Amino acid sequence: MPELRKDPVLGRWIIIATERGKRPTDFIISEPSTKGGFCPLCPGNEKTTPNEVLSYGPEGRRPNTPGWDLRVVPNKYPALVIEGDLKKEGEGLYDKMNGIGAHEVLVETPNHNEFFSSLPPARMVKIFTAFRDRLLDLKKDKRFKYVMIFKNHGRAAGASLEHSHSQLVALPILPRMVVSELAGALSYYQYKERCVYCDIIRQELQGRERLVCENEHFIVITPYAPRSPFEMWVLPKQHSSKYSTESSAMLLSLSEIFSEAMRRLEVCIPNVPYNFVLHTSPLRSPELKHYHYHFEIMPKLTNMAGFEWGSGFYINPTPPEDAAKFLREAKI
Amino acid sequence: MPELRKDPVLGRWIIIATERGKRPTDFIISEPSTKGGFCPLCPGNEKTTPNEVLSYGPEGRRPNTPGWDLRVVPNKYPALVIEGDLKKEGEGLYDKMNGIGAHEVLVETPNHNEFFSSLPPARMVKIFTAFRDRLLDLKKDKRFKYVMIFKNHGRAAGASLEHSHSQLVALPILPRMVVSELAGALSYYQYKERCVYCDIIRQELQGRERLVCENEHFIVITPYAPRSPFEMWVLPKQHSSKYSTESSAMLLSLSEIFSEAMRRLEVCIPNVPYNFVLHTSPLRSPELKHYHYHFEIMPKLTNMAGFEWGSGFYINPTPPEDAAKFLREAKI
Repeated sequence: MPELRKDPVLGRWIIIATERGKRPTDFIISEPSTKGGFCPLCPGNEKTTPNEVLSYGPEGRRPNTPGWDLRVVPNKYPALVIEGDLKKEGEGLYDKMNGIGAHEVLVETPNHNEFFSSLPPARMVKIFTAFRDRLLDLKKDKRFKYVMIFKNHGRAAGASLEHSHSQLVALPILPRMVVSELAGALSYYQYKERCVYCDIIRQELQGRERLVCENEHFIVITPYAPRSPFEMWVLPKQHSSKYSTESSAMLLSLSEIFSEAMRRLEVCIPNVPYNFVLHTSPLRSPELKHYHYHFEIMPKLTNMAGFEWGSGFYINPTPPEDAAKFLREAKI
Repeated sequence: MPELRKDPVLGRWIIIATERGKRPTDFIISEPSTKGGFCPLCPGNEKTTPNEVLSYGPEGRRPNTPGWDLRVVPNKYPALVIEGDLKKEGEGLYDKMNGIGAHEVLVETPNHNEFFSSLPPARMVKIFTAFRDRLLDLKKDKRFKYVMIFKNHGRAAGASLEHSHSQLVALPILPRMVVSELAGALSYYQYKERCVYCDIIRQELQGRERLVCENEHFIVITPYAPRSPFEMWVLPKQHSSKYSTESSAMLLSLSEIFSEAMRRLEVCIPNVPYNFVLHTSPLRSPELKHYHYHFEIMPKLTNMAGFEWGSGFYINPTPPEDAAKFLREAKI
């Protein structure tokens, strides 16, 4: 059983994934990717993954058989497990919890060599719809407080399988980053009586130097204080704190702008490794006036992560105004 | 002139190092290391670095000539610059500051192929002494609030030069991690009237399952909630919030235990890439009852940094109790 442990000073939670327990020798050579080898996410290999919890495809298709357009399955090597009651415990001055949660893999396409960034919006929207559907389903489990939705693309960004996929981790606690973001946004709201992200959108639409692209409903910017070169944020123009309440029409609009942003990035830096993370309000919170859901897309371009990881301090060699200009001028 | 910029929600400061300004094409292939090539940190090449600000070596040696044991020089491509007045400015809702600071490189050995982990304590102590000497010198500059002291070893951990070195970055602001750590430690102190790190030391000395090694003055543990497999913390047993007030005898004792910890790590995982960061109290703060200086050593072993970097949430496949056991049992 995995364990959730809390750093007693910072309040930072860590998952100790004991079922993946690794010995020192496991770290000497990093695992090979599935290039040329067997891929558990490819059609025909459905039986090698746990049973699907969601899939989109033609009517009449039997679960766990080929023919799907998109498929969500529990992670075979989960960081957290779904069975059991949540037990909180002390260990001297430390706090821990058993590692109850869900860890799912969203297979974005049946085609092994197709990447997220090359999917047309009409297909990409299925991914964004699946994020919403899984959020709504996981919310029913009262043990969960938050669902982290993210994608790792490329080995440098942490992807261990080549086949295009994203991940969902349902957690019985709020991650520190969410707590900090909610607190920061609330403190701005209390002072200004406005949502800080709405203010950011207004300022970026006016100044336009950090604007990458926009459509009727969404805006893509390089943030003012980016951790990484070519970092981008995708935000809905209209205030909304909850991703899970978005309409299908909005998700199609999101796909259109997300796809454009990814294609611009891919033209600037071909085969760029990246992560994206959905930042949305906690499962149990009501609609919040001070918080605004958004996606953060972080290219993995510098090797500085180690130090910055440890210190919380980032050095970025590319001003976001320069990055936005390159992205705007990219021929897509 | 570099710029310091603040994220308006999280309060996280970022250095935009404009003098290193990078275009998209700069990211396509990562820069080669100095393997086999010219090394600016080797003896004989002193003229290719800015003039040294500190060096240890035989009496009578002229500055910026060979013969040194250890040498500290300003970074030729600094993230922050030393000249100028600190100007704080708003930019709409955003906050920025000109990038005043110091960025120094500490060359740990004259020998290109010698690593930090293989230095005997009698030589390693010079590095720890230089950290103290530079801290005391940089403190005289009233513009600086904090000096980040860290080491990147190995390309995976962000080292761009092969020749063994550490870095010092003097900052006009407190990094977010320092602010959070001070706040977390203070809140524990207010509740318990004890230093949280002193309590950690007591508990780890009693339980011993996360103890890696110890001597009269220092303890090395794997922390209860480690972000990374084989993460280690080095703490003085006696309460002390300020690294810069440590005596030379204490620094020798520190070198002995630090060297032992590094050798144990190197036996477990040969050629391990890692970072270490000194966590000490801010330059201008008095001796603090609630804070305890320490080093955090983080091996860079997993590729998960991307996601965790973005979310503040860590998945660690190696329980610290297992890691400590491997480290204790390593034949050194």
